[in-house]
Formats: sequence, C-alpha cells, structure tokens
Amino acid sequence: MLGNFTYYNPTKLYFGTQSMNGLNEELPKYGKNVLLVYGGGSIKKNGVYERIIKILQSNGKTVYEDGGVMPNPTTDKLREGIERARAARVDLILAVGGGSVCDYAKAVSVSVNCADDPWEKYFIRFEEPDCAIVPVGCVLTMVGTGSEMNGGSVITNREQNLKIGHVFGAEAFPKFSVLDPEITFTIPKYQMVSGIYDIMSHILEQYFSGTDDNTSDYVMEGLLRSLIHSAEIAVENPRDYEARSNLMWIATWALNTFVEKGKTTDWEVHMLGQAVAAYTDATHGMTLAAVSMPYYRRVLPYGLKKFARYAVNVWNVDPNGKTDEQTAREGLDRMEAWMKKIGLVMNLTDLGATPAMLDGIVKSTFVMEGGYKVLTTEEIREILRESY
Amino acid sequence: MLGNFTYYNPTKLYFGTQSMNGLNEELPKYGKNVLLVYGGGSIKKNGVYERIIKILQSNGKTVYEDGGVMPNPTTDKLREGIERARAARVDLILAVGGGSVCDYAKAVSVSVNCADDPWEKYFIRFEEPDCAIVPVGCVLTMVGTGSEMNGGSVITNREQNLKIGHVFGAEAFPKFSVLDPEITFTIPKYQMVSGIYDIMSHILEQYFSGTDDNTSDYVMEGLLRSLIHSAEIAVENPRDYEARSNLMWIATWALNTFVEKGKTTDWEVHMLGQAVAAYTDATHGMTLAAVSMPYYRRVLPYGLKKFARYAVNVWNVDPNGKTDEQTAREGLDRMEAWMKKIGLVMNLTDLGATPAMLDGIVKSTFVMEGGYKVLTTEEIREILRESY
Repeated sequence: MLGNFTYYNPTKLYFGTQSMNGLNEELPKYGKNVLLVYGGGSIKKNGVYERIIKILQSNGKTVYEDGGVMPNPTTDKLREGIERARAARVDLILAVGGGSVCDYAKAVSVSVNCADDPWEKYFIRFEEPDCAIVPVGCVLTMVGTGSEMNGGSVITNREQNLKIGHVFGAEAFPKFSVLDPEITFTIPKYQMVSGIYDIMSHILEQYFSGTDDNTSDYVMEGLLRSLIHSAEIAVENPRDYEARSNLMWIATWALNTFVEKGKTTDWEVHMLGQAVAAYTDATHGMTLAAVSMPYYRRVLPYGLKKFARYAVNVWNVDPNGKTDEQTAREGLDRMEAWMKKIGLVMNLTDLGATPAMLDGIVKSTFVMEGGYKVLTTEEIREILRESY
Repeated sequence: MLGNFTYYNPTKLYFGTQSMNGLNEELPKYGKNVLLVYGGGSIKKNGVYERIIKILQSNGKTVYEDGGVMPNPTTDKLREGIERARAARVDLILAVGGGSVCDYAKAVSVSVNCADDPWEKYFIRFEEPDCAIVPVGCVLTMVGTGSEMNGGSVITNREQNLKIGHVFGAEAFPKFSVLDPEITFTIPKYQMVSGIYDIMSHILEQYFSGTDDNTSDYVMEGLLRSLIHSAEIAVENPRDYEARSNLMWIATWALNTFVEKGKTTDWEVHMLGQAVAAYTDATHGMTLAAVSMPYYRRVLPYGLKKFARYAVNVWNVDPNGKTDEQTAREGLDRMEAWMKKIGLVMNLTDLGATPAMLDGIVKSTFVMEGGYKVLTTEEIREILRESY
C-alpha cells in the first residue's frame, strides 16, 4: 500500500566519464571558501586530488582542507571538522571520497552554525537541523552507501561503542554529486565487494518489510537483478565500464528514498552490522554480510511469502513442486553461495570480533520494528552467535 | 552503457489520500495571483474544484480561471491562456487535471514573459525558454502522461495537422505536484485504460532502444510487471486503492527522466500516435495502442534479443526449445491479448481515422532515430495501414 508520503530529492547528479566538468557548472553558485573533505589520501595517489584542486583554483576558490576522514567517522573527528569549517567560514563543503566522507561532510554541514553538541543533538536525540546548513557537494570515489543523493549520515562514538545513523531533511542533501565510474576502477577488491553488498543490503532492508505488493517491490527486484549481474562482471573485470557504471547507479537509487515509498522498511541488518563496527571498526559492507544469513534464515518464517517471491524473482528458483518454505530457503542458499563467490566475509571472527565482545555488541544493537519480526535480545544474541 | 548525463528532478511530490494538504505547504511560497487551469469541468462534478478553491482562498490567493483545456490542447487555446496569464500578472499557475492540463500549464508558463510565438519557438524551432518562467504546480486527476514530474508538453496545431511535443528544462518542471489516487477512482474506464497504455508505451519507448544491458532495462521490467499486475486489478475494481496508487506512481516514474538514463530512446510509437491524433483528435493512449502491435512486429527482427528478453522477463514466456524469434513473437502475442482484455482500442478505424486521412497521417509522422529501425516513409505507411 502506497500510503501518504512526500518525495523530494533536489540533488543534481553529474554522471559519467565527463562528470567532473559538472564542478565548473556548480562552483560558481557558491562563495569563495571551500572546505575540501577527504579520507585517507587515496585521492592523492590516483590523481583525483590534483584534478579537483585545479578545478577549484580555476574557479577562484580559497581551499581549506580537512583530510583523514576514517571509514567509520568518529565524533572526535566530527568536532574537529566543525571547528575547521567555522574557522574557514566555509561557503561550500566539497566531499571527495566514499560514503563515509559524504556522511561526515553532511554531519559537519548541519553543525557548523549550531551551538549544540552534534552527537547529542542528531545521533542521540535525533533532532532536525534548526540552524543554517552549509551546502555540500560530493565527488564519489567509492560505491555503496548512496550518501551522494540522500540526507543520511552515520557517525561512530568510540567512547560509547555506538555507531548511529541519522537522516537529515532534504535541505541537507548534497546540492550536487559527481559520479564518475572510472574513478572506482582502482578500488581494492575487498572494498568493491563490500560496497556491492552494502547496496544489496540497502535494497533488502526495504524489500523485506510490509505485506503489500507494491511498485517499490518490483523496482527493487529489478535493481537486485541488475546488481547481481553487474557485480559478477565487475568482480571478474574491475575495469568493465558498463558494470561499474551500473553498480554506481544502482547504489544511488537503492538509497535515495525512491524505493522506500510504500514500505515500512526494516534496517535490522544495519543495526547488527553497525554494532559490530562500533567494536571492531570493520568495513561496513562486510559487517552486513557477516550477519545477514543468520538474520534472514531466522526471520524467514515471519515473511515466508516474500522470501519465496524473492527466491523466484531474484534468484530464479523454480517453485514447482516445492513448498513456499523450500522455495524461500533455496533462495537464501543461492544468495549465500553468491556472496561467497564474489568474496564477501561471511563471519564476524574474520572481521576481528572476539567472543568477549559479544555482550557489548548485543547491547549496542538497536531493535527495529519495520521488518517481519521484532527481535528479542535473546534472538539478537543467537543471530550474532551464529554469525561468529 | 550509462554514458554521460545529468539527472536533476526538483519537483516535490505529495502523494496519498492526504496529499491535497500539500497545497497548504506550497501556496505560501508564491505571490497572490494564481491562475487555476483545468479541463472540461469534471472537477466541478467530483468536488475537487470546490476543495481547491477553498484552499486557495484560505491561503489568501486571488484566483483567475482558465478552464476548458481540451484533451489535445491547441495552439489557439495556448495563445488565449498566455493572454489570460499576462492580464492576471500571475505568480503561480495551478493546473488541476490530467496530462493535457499539466502540459498546457507548462507551455503557458514558459511563454507568458516571452515575446515570440510559442508554437514557432518551442514546437517548430525546439528552442529553450529564455525568459522568466512562471512557476507551475499540478494537482493530478488522471494518470498516464507523467507530466506531473517532467518538463514535457504536447501541443496540437489544428491548421497544420501537427501534434508536437517538446521537453523544457528543469526550470519548467512543476515545482510541486499533488497525487491523490482516490481522485482517479471516478475516471471513466475508457480514459483509465487509455492512461494505462500511455504508461506502458512510455516505458516501452525507452526499453526498446539501445543494445546494452543496463540498470534502466531491469528497472523498466519491474515497472512493467507492476503495471500489468495493478492494471488488471484496477480494471476489475476501479476503487482498489493499492492498484490505483501503484498505477499513479508508475506513471510518474515511467517518464520523469530516471529510466531513460543509458538509453537512446525511441518514441516512434508516440510519433505515429500523435500524427493520428492531429487528424482524429482521438484519446492519446488509444492512438498509441492502435499502432503499437503493427509497429513492434515490424521492428522485432532488428531488436530480436531485446524482444525475446521482454517476452521472458515481462510476459513470462518460457524460452525453452524456442528460437529467439519464436519467444519474441509469443511475447508480443501475449501483450496483444492483454491489451484486448483490458479494453484498449486496437485499430485506427474505431478511433475515427478514415482511409482518406492516411496520406496526411503518414506526412505528419516524424521519423525517430533512437529505436531499432529508422522507418522509411513506405514502412510508416504500411504500419499505419495495418493499424486500420
């Protein structure tokens, strides 16, 4: 059932091998002071940093830098970035990196002109921004999070062992994003497949919710089929432009609010994965991969018809002569085999989780209510134990 | 192959049974003078007119009216609307109706502050607006054209027997659109199924183009499957909210520029249908239905793999033991049977076309180059003859 909702997504996307030229269209719209936000420095090795500095200079910008954003951006880093942005009186924050860098830039953008502590305000009290938001633009160098076209931001508090996401309103969406699939050619395979599973998980978190048979479900099946198809090609040949461009495009549409319409949405896999990352600092997509199969096998009986549909429409399981449960379980088996084939990490131990962390991870896992089963603490513990 | 493109769609959508309340959020953003544009007056029978007048009044607006927009809006009507809008010094054009009314409102909006003749400027010379555009909002009462979230506008010149579409840039997209599926419950079945086929045709015009296997193709297959599913329910029970809401949502996404990315796009069926309408004034979706099967059967050999894929993925044809051509033709046979079942008009004669019109329709048909076969004049004539 498509209930009442608003759809508004004003992010302008520049896509393709020439997309960096979009910066020349966008930069003149903003003031002189640009905060260039990036991660561990891979953009200094692949030439992207130099290209962007040149474009910023030719557009007469004064560039302030904020590098070293980590894969799971911390509250400490966030507070540092806010100070830098304030000191530079920035007119635009240009994030160059993957989802972490975009997420972080958005968190800075809604905090620069706010007196409140950002962790308390946005990630504990889940308040909306009530101060002037600094515009953000993204140049995407990694694929997966969809951060380039939404208001999402995930921040990690190391003292509290919490990794929490918050979605800001449309005013905090990036004003523009540059998506050049060629920039993603040199991402290490581990990061690439992690991103691929992040995309898949985003779609499944929305797909496995609700009982209705609405357009979003059909669109998500299309996205999943395209994702599976292109992922296999990209794993074989990371420089296949068509596959990499499809992956980039699917990532954006998996989490730009389109396919959530009409769905209650679950996000329990993300809650489990984020709790793991709060303890291990493991790569996001891998934390999702490691907990997914135990989670889905456990909730399958509560969403049987949907899991059977998933098996048939996404994994080409032939339902003839099978019960819904058999069909559904065969779908998950095929999914698991595929995950292993593309190189995902399928257990928490390989991600650095120790048995001693289990209690803490259980405690850090938020319980969601939009999926097929609201988990008890005991169920969370069992799912995590099965994920080790 | 997803080449270089820009995606930017700033239309804000209010969807659902409470969506009319969106007007109270939007109207305060604009000045006092509102031009209320509508069609033949069905909104005065179903209560929509009164509801909107009340909302406009409670927002302190001065309302100027421009009713009587016909299903195929003419250049004469357009020139009249421009004069009305100028005289009223309108701050906002509020279109209440189906695609024709939205299309017309957009054509007025880009012409009010322009000295040039709109037909010559936009529909003959295909120029971009270079004057201030009056903002447009839409309240959708019919489903099909997708006009509520794009820059498209189709205008008919009766003297020249031409019906031509033009797509204005993002600045001319509606600023907001209100989509309440319940308003569509009372649309006569003829109009409903005509709209359903308009949606299907929009998707197919984009799907049957290009040789690549990109994400847009997968998404379109999902949209088509959902469309077929919901259309069958809506034809049985026009008051099925879920089916009507899905149809409304699919129509928007079929033509808001998302699924065209990576596709060359065809639009030859629309060129044939529009030429028919220029002579007969027949309902848009029906003109498309009447010419589609002869067109697709003729171009099938030039896009064989895609037509076979369509048969399997959309119409559930089992390809085992069949040639691609057999599979593809079986798909089109199933499509034809389905079209008849839901009540579409399958020939031009029933739409009022006479043999004497054939030469003129052939002459009025534009030849497109993005599909699988660039038609010769002789092929256009044969397709149209087969459509009688």
